Amino acid sequence: MSKPIRVIQCGLGDIGRRAARLVLEKSSLRLAGAVDPRFDGRDLGRVLELDRALGIRVSDKLSAVLATTKADAVLHCTGSTFAGVHGQFAEIIRAGLHCVSSCEEAMFPFYREPKRAAQLNRLCARHGVSVLGTGVNPGFVMDTLATIATAVCRRVDAVRVLRVVDAGTRREALQRKVGAGLSEKEFRKRAKTRQIRHVGLGESLVFIAEALDWDLTKVDETIAPVLSEKTIRTKHLTVTKGQAAGVRQVATGWRDGRKVLELELHMYVGATKPRDEVTVNGIPPMRVVVEGGTPGDEATPAILVNCLPRVMEAKPGLHTMLTIGLPRAIL
Amino acid sequence: MSKPIRVIQCGLGDIGRRAARLVLEKSSLRLAGAVDPRFDGRDLGRVLELDRALGIRVSDKLSAVLATTKADAVLHCTGSTFAGVHGQFAEIIRAGLHCVSSCEEAMFPFYREPKRAAQLNRLCARHGVSVLGTGVNPGFVMDTLATIATAVCRRVDAVRVLRVVDAGTRREALQRKVGAGLSEKEFRKRAKTRQIRHVGLGESLVFIAEALDWDLTKVDETIAPVLSEKTIRTKHLTVTKGQAAGVRQVATGWRDGRKVLELELHMYVGATKPRDEVTVNGIPPMRVVVEGGTPGDEATPAILVNCLPRVMEAKPGLHTMLTIGLPRAIL
Repeated sequence: MSKPIRVIQCGLGDIGRRAARLVLEKSSLRLAGAVDPRFDGRDLGRVLELDRALGIRVSDKLSAVLATTKADAVLHCTGSTFAGVHGQFAEIIRAGLHCVSSCEEAMFPFYREPKRAAQLNRLCARHGVSVLGTGVNPGFVMDTLATIATAVCRRVDAVRVLRVVDAGTRREALQRKVGAGLSEKEFRKRAKTRQIRHVGLGESLVFIAEALDWDLTKVDETIAPVLSEKTIRTKHLTVTKGQAAGVRQVATGWRDGRKVLELELHMYVGATKPRDEVTVNGIPPMRVVVEGGTPGDEATPAILVNCLPRVMEAKPGLHTMLTIGLPRAIL
Repeated sequence: MSKPIRVIQCGLGDIGRRAARLVLEKSSLRLAGAVDPRFDGRDLGRVLELDRALGIRVSDKLSAVLATTKADAVLHCTGSTFAGVHGQFAEIIRAGLHCVSSCEEAMFPFYREPKRAAQLNRLCARHGVSVLGTGVNPGFVMDTLATIATAVCRRVDAVRVLRVVDAGTRREALQRKVGAGLSEKEFRKRAKTRQIRHVGLGESLVFIAEALDWDLTKVDETIAPVLSEKTIRTKHLTVTKGQAAGVRQVATGWRDGRKVLELELHMYVGATKPRDEVTVNGIPPMRVVVEGGTPGDEATPAILVNCLPRVMEAKPGLHTMLTIGLPRAIL
């Protein structure tokens, strides 16, 4: 086996901590440093709730870690918007490190931030490194899997993806994020100010369109509460009858007046039959189902970590899941 | 849109003719030439049973077409064994053309023919072109799809793929290939001399192992007839009770005494519940199902054609589905 990839974990929220723990499990990776102002100065082993110290002191500054740590790549888990993280990407690139990020908008940055994305792409090329945004959603089920299902089609007329997640089985932050336990009024208020939403559905939609070389003439996104028909208690909160149990979010894409893409996400407490369903209308038609659905809390750190070698072997640049080698589990 | 890719169709059997017809449907491709000794001198439009001539005369010699045709890539559908086609690949590479091939063993040539594969890889690099073997099976359902399902796993303990095909719905050549209508004795005789078999199951197995960086300590392949419990008439033949309806073929892979890969193909007349099922034992476990199964006759030419741009944009070399960009439908 080749030399282990030395990884800096940037961001130690729930996903970041899970990713760091997974790096420790992988024989092909080595944890080299960590950044998070919330844990400045603490030993990473303690922050990860291991039974031992790791001898890696968490720093509050990315620049300091980049300057003092011998590493190959950064696992980046600090934010959801490309506008919020592109400065961190630039620092990482200038330090000559590759980067895999959980930033939802970075999964297809050319959509909302084409100019900044183009700049970062050039910066990557100049420094000989690559950056990729990925995850389970966006990053896998509603975009990459949907796209690869079309590989066996002579013709594709429309693609539809349905993801149903029982938020009641997920971590507290996610249950709060989808508005579980709020009144309908409060839900709509927060949805309006974008405090409640799944980030990345639009990215998934535009990713598929780009993959299929489709010029979309219209893109639309809606969000609505799913109101609970009964009282449900999760480990973290209670949803009473009539309150929001979570979201039903839909992104649609049109080509010349015809609806060709529809991504529908149901993420609420008490959702039944969790699953991911890809339906390709075309010749031949295809229906690909992930039975039980891809479990985000486990799978998101996994795909981030698994993509590290793929990013490092890619041509330098700002990548998407379209332009790296086939994503797969690593040792 | 960029300039159309000019394609030479090499091999005009059933899959080759379907592939050529599909090239004609695609706005991003242009059919530039055709080779098949069986149709030497005939107009390609007639061979493809179109209602018009195409002004493309089928040649009996690949070398002649390569020498006289302005083209970018070859769609290659002439044979199943790498030993049988690698000379044609070398001709194509030396002519400076890319190649996508339906040759089953070319889907992972490093398995049975590592030396010849390495030679061709070097030849590709020297001439700045790429070659890829792909298809539906091998090429997609039992290997590529199984591999990408592991991308969201922290740990993979074992991968199992089951493909069930009702051979009764497929073309005559395939029904004959799986031994439908033979006595059990005749089936076993022909299976022994490898006249009856699905080619490529071992390739799919080794592809997954390579993808997951697993050193297999043992690989095993078995083939047995599925005997019909009743008389079944297809469009092309009749299977009476007790005769072979088709094959049950299994490839297994072990790592250190533990069975970690199992690919099972049921391809027989009258098979019920056709489907492709990928089961990943791991954390999290994954179960991905193509409902109804991926229909090979339609889908094989589709994936060949769809991979043309992916091969052309790849780094020069002998590729597998692991090293090209994400496979998807093209316009």
